[in-house]
Amino acid sequence: MSAAADTIVFALPGNETLAAALAENHGAEIGALVMRRFPDGETYLRFDSPVRGHRVILACSLHHPDDKALPLLFAAATARELGAAEIGLAAPYLGYMRQDKRFQDGEAVTSALFAKLLSPHIDWLVTVDPHLHRWNSLDQIYSVPSTVIPAAPLLAAWIKANVDAPVLIGPDAESEQWVSAVAGIAGAPHVVLEKIRRSDHDVSVSVPDPATLRGRTPVLVDDIISTGRTMLAAVQHVMAQGLQAPVCVGVHAVFSGDAHDALLAAGASRVVTTDTIPHSSNGISVQQAMAKAVAALT
Amino acid sequence: MSAAADTIVFALPGNETLAAALAENHGAEIGALVMRRFPDGETYLRFDSPVRGHRVILACSLHHPDDKALPLLFAAATARELGAAEIGLAAPYLGYMRQDKRFQDGEAVTSALFAKLLSPHIDWLVTVDPHLHRWNSLDQIYSVPSTVIPAAPLLAAWIKANVDAPVLIGPDAESEQWVSAVAGIAGAPHVVLEKIRRSDHDVSVSVPDPATLRGRTPVLVDDIISTGRTMLAAVQHVMAQGLQAPVCVGVHAVFSGDAHDALLAAGASRVVTTDTIPHSSNGISVQQAMAKAVAALT
Repeated sequence: MSAAADTIVFALPGNETLAAALAENHGAEIGALVMRRFPDGETYLRFDSPVRGHRVILACSLHHPDDKALPLLFAAATARELGAAEIGLAAPYLGYMRQDKRFQDGEAVTSALFAKLLSPHIDWLVTVDPHLHRWNSLDQIYSVPSTVIPAAPLLAAWIKANVDAPVLIGPDAESEQWVSAVAGIAGAPHVVLEKIRRSDHDVSVSVPDPATLRGRTPVLVDDIISTGRTMLAAVQHVMAQGLQAPVCVGVHAVFSGDAHDALLAAGASRVVTTDTIPHSSNGISVQQAMAKAVAALT
Repeated sequence: MSAAADTIVFALPGNETLAAALAENHGAEIGALVMRRFPDGETYLRFDSPVRGHRVILACSLHHPDDKALPLLFAAATARELGAAEIGLAAPYLGYMRQDKRFQDGEAVTSALFAKLLSPHIDWLVTVDPHLHRWNSLDQIYSVPSTVIPAAPLLAAWIKANVDAPVLIGPDAESEQWVSAVAGIAGAPHVVLEKIRRSDHDVSVSVPDPATLRGRTPVLVDDIISTGRTMLAAVQHVMAQGLQAPVCVGVHAVFSGDAHDALLAAGASRVVTTDTIPHSSNGISVQQAMAKAVAALT
């Protein structure tokens, strides 16, 4: 068996282009994974390429994870039963990173529970900027080695290539470290807004000194755009200051509800995200960076 | 702590009446379980009643299991973390029973995989007539003790009370043992049709001797009504023989697509199921039988 034939990449539904990028990068094979739902909503899954003795890579982004988790676990467990030599997971977006603490008595700490469910079924994990807040590292919750691809260089490169005289704006204090990293690589100044969150959907921001922003293109940067309320408050604030229409840049295009359209309606000139989650706003690809990281592991 | 306070029953969404029946039967408490979905589709879950030192019973029917599995596993794992003394699962319908063999190379044997995922999180399991075909018993796949409630006596009682001069008809050879059990308890004759299945949706049946059916009310009986194509072919066959309009009786109301309406449109006088899966056709309750089985365990 040649080194190239050794690795075989399977796409869970919707991850076909990622799987192709992963395979192409080191001449690996794309395997055929058949997945459909029975009339009663249960998953049918079949590997149509042999996995015995192979390094199997499963490409599966984990947004809206509740109905993806079971098929993914079935795929990994079946590959193991069928004799795969090694099973890696390439998940550009890793779900269940936000509940990292029992904020109230009785809560499920789903980040740790999800990691515990997944870990026994895989040998390693590659992802892009997981939303680490109270956890310092995936190693605290995942019992398998993980490689984290930083999105900051990719975002910085896009901003440098596409925005004149940018000033980067972090929409809340939580984003400080992250925005300053992007700004550092892009060689651009940055400021951070202060956020007051009243609920999932009700967020306002405080005013930074508008003078520092004049004559520059505001670029709002965040890791996840979910309800978009944090980013929206920042757009509204920038527009209210009479500044240039801002560009919104995010890593993970979670976008629940009308979040994307609301940003444009509020005055954003453009909304750009990476392709960790498929969305019409995707303009920055993480796939080559993921392929390199996977190639380095294998 | 009194014996009554010892047990606390929690309903996963949609299982509230079952939880109430389970609790009422042995004076146990109903606990508050808060479950919602974040805007990004992830599950938030919180026990709002203390579980430490208690016997926790989770009521959760497992039809369309893919998006129910993760919340259920989170609930069970969290109850364990919070110090529950024992965790039982009351699942009137147990999903993932049908793929019980690798029919084709590379297939996921999801019945065994689902059981393996669930087993470490619970201490026992109560369910109603799981679709056992190649597995002889749940013990072959679940590593925790299970109690199986037979639906046959409940169906037989309903038929005796509601149908004059019934003749029970099993829609295919697979249903023989099961239909004969119901018929035996109901004290009614039975016949079994032969099924030719061409695909999930294309099924026809062969003709039993119509003479044995004349002057009786045909009662078509099956364990699961899913696409309903098997049952539908039986209804059409009975109508084509010029017999009385049949009554359709099923245990598990999976009913994908237009299955239920199609049976009525084809001439069934009535379609009746148990409440293992909530559906407008539910007319036979398994909840008291489940409550008795759970009470016997606790």
